[in-house]
Amino acid sequence: MLFAPVADGLMAVEHCLMEAAEGRHPLLAEALRYVFETSGKRLRPAMVLLSGALGNYDLERLVLLASSLEVVHTASLVHDDTIDEALTRRGLTTISSLWDKHTAIVTGDFLFAKSADLASRMNSVRIMKMLSETVMDMCSGEIQQHGATNNWRLGVGEYLERIGAKTASLFAMCCAGAAVASGQDEQQIEALRRYGYNIGLAFQLVDDILDFTGDAGTLGKPAGNDLRQGTITLPAILFVQQLAADAPLRMRLEHGEDAGLAAELIRDSHALEAARAYAYDAAEEASRALDLFEDSEPKRALLEIADYLPNRTA
Amino acid sequence: MLFAPVADGLMAVEHCLMEAAEGRHPLLAEALRYVFETSGKRLRPAMVLLSGALGNYDLERLVLLASSLEVVHTASLVHDDTIDEALTRRGLTTISSLWDKHTAIVTGDFLFAKSADLASRMNSVRIMKMLSETVMDMCSGEIQQHGATNNWRLGVGEYLERIGAKTASLFAMCCAGAAVASGQDEQQIEALRRYGYNIGLAFQLVDDILDFTGDAGTLGKPAGNDLRQGTITLPAILFVQQLAADAPLRMRLEHGEDAGLAAELIRDSHALEAARAYAYDAAEEASRALDLFEDSEPKRALLEIADYLPNRTA
Repeated sequence: MLFAPVADGLMAVEHCLMEAAEGRHPLLAEALRYVFETSGKRLRPAMVLLSGALGNYDLERLVLLASSLEVVHTASLVHDDTIDEALTRRGLTTISSLWDKHTAIVTGDFLFAKSADLASRMNSVRIMKMLSETVMDMCSGEIQQHGATNNWRLGVGEYLERIGAKTASLFAMCCAGAAVASGQDEQQIEALRRYGYNIGLAFQLVDDILDFTGDAGTLGKPAGNDLRQGTITLPAILFVQQLAADAPLRMRLEHGEDAGLAAELIRDSHALEAARAYAYDAAEEASRALDLFEDSEPKRALLEIADYLPNRTA
Repeated sequence: MLFAPVADGLMAVEHCLMEAAEGRHPLLAEALRYVFETSGKRLRPAMVLLSGALGNYDLERLVLLASSLEVVHTASLVHDDTIDEALTRRGLTTISSLWDKHTAIVTGDFLFAKSADLASRMNSVRIMKMLSETVMDMCSGEIQQHGATNNWRLGVGEYLERIGAKTASLFAMCCAGAAVASGQDEQQIEALRRYGYNIGLAFQLVDDILDFTGDAGTLGKPAGNDLRQGTITLPAILFVQQLAADAPLRMRLEHGEDAGLAAELIRDSHALEAARAYAYDAAEEASRALDLFEDSEPKRALLEIADYLPNRTA
């Protein structure tokens, strides 16, 4: 179990999240409990705790940071689902379909404020600044993605910049924030930022690959869903680059047609393998960033996460 | 002109807002510029600056706070309009109709993060805590309103609690935050919090009255719009309390019928006058809160705002 070195902290994060759900309006508390209970694998809190364990493992501060950043992640999921009008996420009913759009938007807003509230209890203006920068990055990446809907001329560089802002910035914050919170020096903070950022890239790259290969039961959405929504990800970019400039399929794709066919062709092409190579590169870059730390249990866990991520299948 | 004593600060707030719009994705910058240019009368920034002028008028800090809180207000408007699917606000096209729901939700999220970013530049954890508490209050009030849709059994106390959370909390933050930022003592901070909270109540009470009396051109929506959307405000509460417990109209209203008729009856009843008495009371309470300050130009402006608000007609 990769997260074993920080099992105590992860338990404390669960308590912190459940506490964060209470204390305001009952309808809000109900929505918050639901979203915390059904959300995720706590990968981001684990990254915070493991990164913090490389410094002075101040459990209270790190649990606040880990909870705060899991809350940010949850907020962005709730709003993403509202935007996409998704009925389910990983097989579970979304807030916007279980309650309604109104409740979902306000619950997401509350979560963003709650994340700042949790972080503020660490009494560090630096952490607060990093947190607001991160959320602005995430929104910027989201807008960039929205603005590039059905843009089949998207380059690899623009794609990497987008997932960097949308996804990797939060992972970078997890690790760099934990380094700050555990009193590490600037070089270590920068190393952990680089580790987190590249882990985030690897994570999103694989997510974008799984969208083509995963089965509907595990993902809770049909394969090729991104493409059907007009979101052009790396496998699609690499696939279309192989087509002749005047290939009829390219023309049709640029007119928003044949996304389902393209998804099938991409699944059976070398584009997925080529995209996975990027995930391996990012994971390797993440591992290299940890070179300056001495061997330790948490460092080994962080390296194992980097090894595991590019190969994950769900 | 009520805001004359702080005209310099208000100019600086405009600059700060325009700067806040830039630097990320062009699509986001365009949406942000639009929303800042078309939003409001800068009442909240003026409250910050005038309250700060009762202490050490540190222009740079107060402008950051004023801009941060105007940005919070703007974020909540953008999300409110998205929830309501409003096409216009005060005659101007909303972001969600000029762009789309996706852009509107993410722009609102970005604005919440930007408000924290601006506030963090004041280097005060206390201000950051107050800010996140305020946004949580606002969300809580919004959820409370949503949960009470078409609830004709709503009491005056619940209504006041709701508008206190949804609207008055931000006004309270403007004044109390400014008191903190200008180095005032705890008694003065509390007095300004009480002033701001009651100004916020008066403001919302009048807003809810104008919804019945205002003409569609000024409001950008039909008279009685709140009621048609199922939002029961004070005039409606006071009106329905006068009906017999078994009055057929009461029964129909509780079944979500006849909102248009009720809006007409309320407009022609004493309920509006009775509701306005609450606004006068709140404004008086606001003025009394300033008793502990010596006479000064900014104090006189704050008192004038309290005098003006219950009578405003737009």
